[in-house]
Amino acid sequence: MIDYDAFLSRAAAGMKESAIRRMGSVVARNRDVISFAPGYPSAETFLNQDFQEIARELLSGSDEHVLQYGPTRGFRPLVELVAEIMDHRGAPAALDRLLITTGSQQGLDLVARVLLDPGDVVLVELPTYTGAIAAFRNVQAHMAGVRQDADGIDLAALDAVYARLVRAGRRVRLLYLVPNFQNPTGLLIGRDKRLALLEWAARHDILIVEDDPYRELYFDNAATEADVRPMKADDREGRVVYLSSFSKTLAPGYRVAWIDAPAALAAKFEFAKQAADLCTGTLDQRLVYEVARRGILNRQLPLLRTHYREKRDVMVAALGRELADVVSWTDPRGGFFLWARLPQGLDADRLLDRAVRHGVVYVAGEAFFVDDADDGLPRASNDGGRNLLRLSFSAPNHSRIREGVVRLAAAIREELAELSSSASAVQQAR
Amino acid sequence: MIDYDAFLSRAAAGMKESAIRRMGSVVARNRDVISFAPGYPSAETFLNQDFQEIARELLSGSDEHVLQYGPTRGFRPLVELVAEIMDHRGAPAALDRLLITTGSQQGLDLVARVLLDPGDVVLVELPTYTGAIAAFRNVQAHMAGVRQDADGIDLAALDAVYARLVRAGRRVRLLYLVPNFQNPTGLLIGRDKRLALLEWAARHDILIVEDDPYRELYFDNAATEADVRPMKADDREGRVVYLSSFSKTLAPGYRVAWIDAPAALAAKFEFAKQAADLCTGTLDQRLVYEVARRGILNRQLPLLRTHYREKRDVMVAALGRELADVVSWTDPRGGFFLWARLPQGLDADRLLDRAVRHGVVYVAGEAFFVDDADDGLPRASNDGGRNLLRLSFSAPNHSRIREGVVRLAAAIREELAELSSSASAVQQAR
Repeated sequence: MIDYDAFLSRAAAGMKESAIRRMGSVVARNRDVISFAPGYPSAETFLNQDFQEIARELLSGSDEHVLQYGPTRGFRPLVELVAEIMDHRGAPAALDRLLITTGSQQGLDLVARVLLDPGDVVLVELPTYTGAIAAFRNVQAHMAGVRQDADGIDLAALDAVYARLVRAGRRVRLLYLVPNFQNPTGLLIGRDKRLALLEWAARHDILIVEDDPYRELYFDNAATEADVRPMKADDREGRVVYLSSFSKTLAPGYRVAWIDAPAALAAKFEFAKQAADLCTGTLDQRLVYEVARRGILNRQLPLLRTHYREKRDVMVAALGRELADVVSWTDPRGGFFLWARLPQGLDADRLLDRAVRHGVVYVAGEAFFVDDADDGLPRASNDGGRNLLRLSFSAPNHSRIREGVVRLAAAIREELAELSSSASAVQQAR
Repeated sequence: MIDYDAFLSRAAAGMKESAIRRMGSVVARNRDVISFAPGYPSAETFLNQDFQEIARELLSGSDEHVLQYGPTRGFRPLVELVAEIMDHRGAPAALDRLLITTGSQQGLDLVARVLLDPGDVVLVELPTYTGAIAAFRNVQAHMAGVRQDADGIDLAALDAVYARLVRAGRRVRLLYLVPNFQNPTGLLIGRDKRLALLEWAARHDILIVEDDPYRELYFDNAATEADVRPMKADDREGRVVYLSSFSKTLAPGYRVAWIDAPAALAAKFEFAKQAADLCTGTLDQRLVYEVARRGILNRQLPLLRTHYREKRDVMVAALGRELADVVSWTDPRGGFFLWARLPQGLDADRLLDRAVRHGVVYVAGEAFFVDDADDGLPRASNDGGRNLLRLSFSAPNHSRIREGVVRLAAAIREELAELSSSASAVQQAR
């Protein structure tokens, strides 16, 4: 027998399955389960008919490059189109700053590999996106969490965590932020705070990684274009590496996203990508390009904003009906997620089995936390997320959202009842 | 000004542009250049009509999963189909051994990240595939080259290089091989040698990475199914990580390939892939699956074998007509590549500018060499490849192959004439 553990790299020894992806397997095995777990866009919104027509044209055989290897930077017309999008977002980008990636997850992976050595510190919001945690962990970086306020990451806490890390002799390299409708909390960083963060990063000579997949999905009764202005738009000195994606607006199955970074870094991301997958799917890039070029994407955006706002409304209303007395939650102004808090004493991870039996799943909050006590440093501000959970309202339809919340409520009340009966049993035994 | 170099990881500091990809940019800028550089499959062979029909069906909107995120392991029916392919290749695989990757380049990257720490040694054939060099270099592994005979890697040289590395205290982890129609030499490892290599790896407790993209493309007048039997088929103890791909048989634009590895390693590759790109393109996987399921791929394979054999014949005949007196080359029994040797004193890299002026490009041999003298170890058997080059006959049509060889011959003869006149000038000056 070969001892495969002996062959694993130090990075691989620490690699784990993603909690969100694991939930995907649970749902695949139990078809009737209503899933509030993954941040899947709604398949109803996918533009199948347009894509069908465009695929027919692209596969006519008239262009021999459609199915061939393509440039690592990306299909040139798509790169130019991304430049227009960045311009529209207030951050005009020269082409040498742009790189098409195989989803934003690849963007995070390239950032991690190009900018972090083992032990280097990334400051992250607490809680933060699991995919970023995985990408940073896989290069053996050290993540230190900073708690958030109602308008995003707390500046005083940021100062305190940074000072502690510097005292401990750590090399702090990156500040990772999801300013728009953060995953998992749904929070939006305020406009002034964005500028303050840029200044803070300049003061400490740290790069900012701005992850912005949900930017187009602001709810028009709660946020404006001005609220979602990227930090990149005010990045005068080239300190921000900006990631965004077509996954939430067109479809994630194409795996088409982009990085906008200072040209010197974009070149390194390109070299890293050459060795990672040579190029992003070439048919996929053309499908995305054509649907954007023809104006179909822009016509779609207001519809998406309404679609997801209505779903948020349905979920918030259902939570209000079913769980207002025991659960609290954020009211996001865009994006896919609610962040909910169970009664003290409940454990979202332990509750999951019961929830599955009731036919509903979510992601237990723990997956979004980092614990920089792992390597002997003092713990960051971190309540561990035991009674927190992320609820995605993006994929299920309205009636499934309502039914899912009813099931979730049943699971929570059953758990509460069991807890209180065992507590009273303990009291009687005393 | 931000000093971006100060932010690069140690890995990123060593990342370079691929020589092959750079040639791609040269060709893109000079449309009339005939390219023998990249290993592009022939676009004439792409099954556009079948893909058009299948795309129409897939994008009908009847299956909401087609454009959604998918499982990291891959689209389950495609994984099952890959199991059938492995069975047909003599290496039956349980599903827990298989993982769909975003091209085989991702497979190499996952192998590197999961199995190598900085400084660990990978033994490679000399010359070897540039994409593998890049993937191994990006995790700061040390590559040691072993020279090849007519039937592949030289066993005595392998022993000698291994012994030298062990004496130097290095940790030798992997043996990377392309047994079928190696990139760049086109060589085929003999049947007995394959078994001897498995035994050798067992004796030294090293894992074998078997990279097999060209397996289906044997030339029926020169090789048989038995000749291309994977080493994985005789891997009784689970020592081989096997990579293969649909890029050369269907189209590379889909970025669909696979790994067959011992289950314990496949699980780690899956976790690494989760953080690298979440999943391979879902429409792409279905397109590939459908064209295989319907028997179209299997009907295509004999046609591909003939197509590429004819192109090899055309290139070999053209070389014989134009360059037999000064250049020598391998006569591959499958795949995409010829490996050619210029007259002593010519430098394939220096010749490239002149070749471009004549309207033809290739990849200078140096890109396929590793130099383990970089870190102070003694040099491996390595002639540096200054007068070697790789010629791909796969993509251009017959008349372009002929014309390209005429152009190449003109460039070589011009260079030779210049060299001899400057040599006689030097002699006269003495």
